[in-house]
Formats: sequence, C-alpha cells, structure tokens
Amino acid sequence: MEGLSLKNPVFAAYMVCAALLVLKMAAMSWLTVYRMLRINGGMRNPEDANPGPANPRPRPGQLDPVDYVERIRRIHQNDQENLLPFLAIGWLYVLTSPSPTVALVLLYGYVLSRLLHFAANLSARPHEWRATLWTVGSLILIGMALTTLWAGLRA
Amino acid sequence: MEGLSLKNPVFAAYMVCAALLVLKMAAMSWLTVYRMLRINGGMRNPEDANPGPANPRPRPGQLDPVDYVERIRRIHQNDQENLLPFLAIGWLYVLTSPSPTVALVLLYGYVLSRLLHFAANLSARPHEWRATLWTVGSLILIGMALTTLWAGLRA
Amino acid sequence: MEGLSLKNPVFAAYMVCAALLVLKMAAMSWLTVYRMLRINGGMRNPEDANPGPANPRPRPGQLDPVDYVERIRRIHQNDQENLLPFLAIGWLYVLTSPSPTVALVLLYGYVLSRLLHFAANLSARPHEWRATLWTVGSLILIGMALTTLWAGLRA
Repeated sequence: MEGLSLKNPVFAAYMVCAALLVLKMAAMSWLTVYRMLRINGGMRNPEDANPGPANPRPRPGQLDPVDYVERIRRIHQNDQENLLPFLAIGWLYVLTSPSPTVALVLLYGYVLSRLLHFAANLSARPHEWRATLWTVGSLILIGMALTTLWAGLRA
Repeated sequence: MEGLSLKNPVFAAYMVCAALLVLKMAAMSWLTVYRMLRINGGMRNPEDANPGPANPRPRPGQLDPVDYVERIRRIHQNDQENLLPFLAIGWLYVLTSPSPTVALVLLYGYVLSRLLHFAANLSARPHEWRATLWTVGSLILIGMALTTLWAGLRA
Repeated sequence: MEGLSLKNPVFAAYMVCAALLVLKMAAMSWLTVYRMLRINGGMRNPEDANPGPANPRPRPGQLDPVDYVERIRRIHQNDQENLLPFLAIGWLYVLTSPSPTVALVLLYGYVLSRLLHFAANLSARPHEWRATLWTVGSLILIGMALTTLWAGLRA
C-alpha cells in the first residue's frame, strides 16, 4: 500500500477525478446563475425580486420556478447525492490496495458515466438514457463501498 | 498517532462506518426508484412523463409529488445534511488520536443512531422519536468537530 | 510534502477550517429546529402535525412553508452545495504542497467569505452582497480544484 501520496498512481488518479467532479459541481452553480440572468427569473430569495444593480427592472413572477433553471438545480442536487459520497469513499477504496487497472477503470469510468449523465439530463433525453448512465455510476459507487467495508472488517 | 492506515483500528472502524453510511445513502436512491416504479408516479423530470420502455402508458399526474416517494427524498436529504459532514470530519477526528474506546463508541454509535432514525422516519413514528435519534447523531458530530478544532488550534 | 499530519501547519489549518465549517452546517440544522419551534410551524413531515409532547395543540397550516424557516433551509442547502465540495478538495489541495502563505489565505479566506455570506443571507441584504461573497468562495474552490487537477495530472 503506497497510500495517500502523489507517488501512488491510483491516488493521483483519485485526485484528478476528485478535482474534475468538484469543478463539475461548481460549474452547476455558475450555470444556474447564468440561466437565472438570461431569463431574468427563477430566483428563490424574496429579496432578489427587489430593484437593484442586478435587477434594474423587476417584473412579477421572477420568483416563480422555471424549468429552464430548475433542471440545472435538479442536476446539481443529483450531483450532491452521488458525487459527494463518491468523493468520501473513493480515497478509502484507494487505501484498500486495489488492482491499479481495476481502480483506474472504476475511477475514470465513474467520471465518464457522470459526464454522460449530465449531457443526457441537460438535453432532456428519454428517461432510459439517464437511468442507465446513473446505474453505471451507482454500481461503481456500491462496489467501492463494499470493497472498503470488507477491507475495514478484515483489518 | 498511527494515522490513516488499516493497521490503526480506529481508522479501520472509520472505514467500516464510512462504507456503511455510503451504502445507506445509495440505498435511498434505489428506494426512491423502487417507489416511483411501484406507484408509476412521483417523477420530477418532465420528460419522464413521456411514453417509453420505462413508462409504456403515461397517465396524468405522474409528475405530482406523492408522499410515498417524497418521504424517501426527505430522508435522503436529511442524510446529505448529516452523513456527509460526518464523513468529512470523522477521519480528521481519528487523526487527533482519541481514546480508541471513546472513538469506537462515537463512530459506531453514530451509525446506529442514523439507522434507527431511518427506521423511525420510514415508519412515520411520532416526531419525538426522530428528534431524539437525530439529536444523538448531531451531538456526536459536534463533539468530533470540537475535538478536531481544538487539536488543529493547538498544533 | 509533510502530508496529512498535525505537524504540517497547512494541514492543521485545514483541520481548523473543516471543523468550523462542519460546526456551521450543524448550526443550520439547530437553527431550523429553533425557528420551527418558535413559530410552531414550517414542518415538512406529515406526522409532525399530529398532537404529541412536541406539538400539544396542533393548528391548521403547520406544514405550510414559511419563509422564516425556508430561508435557513436555503442557507443550509447552499452550504451543502459549497462547503461539502470544499471539504472534499481542501485536503487534496494541501497535498499538492502549496505555498503555506497562499494556502492559509485561501483556507481562512474561504471560511471568512462563507461566514459573511451567511450574515448577508440571514439578514436578507440586497442580492449583490450575497452574490459577491459567494463568488469569492467559489473562485477559491475552483482555484484549489485546478491546482489539485494539475498536480494529479503531472504526477
């Protein structure tokens, strides 16, 4: 076990994946902002409907939910449900000394499945696409958690 | 301080607890899917109401919130508010070299309190059950965070 | 690279920041509870409207959303979207051996920006205050993630 060091290629891969997923989540925040600005609506805080530099001409209904914005919020929520547990278990899985090849496939496969899930969700593809891609990521997450559980119980 | 190694029994216990909690959260996703399929409703994405292999005969109201599904979403949300901070602080607490006995009681006590909280919430037990079990977990979390804060400030 | 040890002052600073942010999130849960008790409303679980020790005299509308409570839930949600990715990337950023001065400015700057963001949100300050403070934190998060990505790719 080479552990939590950049010299361990599996841990370096975890760092790359973690950074990509955190950037992906940060991008969802900015995409929500962009879409709210573009339609001048979809805000949630009552004070955001007051006049000000960011809202020079308030109009009624600016606080109503709009699917153009809500879709990004749902994607962001789905990221929180999935990516954050992945970030929490991924490095523990690395500490179980998995086969490097298997580990790299699982780590990068997870990131890829989530990017494709994002594309399917953003473009409102039929439910089955989203469900299939989500399932791939969920099974990788469960596999890593079971490996970690087993290693911890045997220790 | 034996640190972040499977040879440290407190860290091994953290790995077991982290894996159990991640599996618990993943189970909430699957339980949401199961309940949506069972009642053929409670979806959130507009495209999920379109006809397709997963929804051969759409009916009106499939996108309306249903408490049978929303309850699992609330539990999942509560897990995100509680388990994810626990996962973030738990291993830092392990690095403060706590008494192994105290650490094991807190780690496994947290997992137990959350599983009982889940049971109380799923079966819609009176509010006081949920509140009491949530409080146990919250106090463990706060205790770990205060221990970590103190160790970091003294370093 | 001194790594994940209390002897590394940058990692000790990460521990302090992580503990403060976890305590901040736990405080949001308790603030939600406090506000629900104070107005005797704003609950979400149907069973919470039943009579019991915590709700001796139920009244209609106890399950309706009230902004006095919903504001704290929005703040809590915003914390989950922002603080949890910060907790996941912060220690990986520490492992990239950043300049200690830069690292301490980023870590403590992030905590400060989020506490001010909380104050601006709680007191319903104009949108621009919240947006500016949120942007500071988001740019710190993105900077840490890019540094981690680069270090992982070079390894």
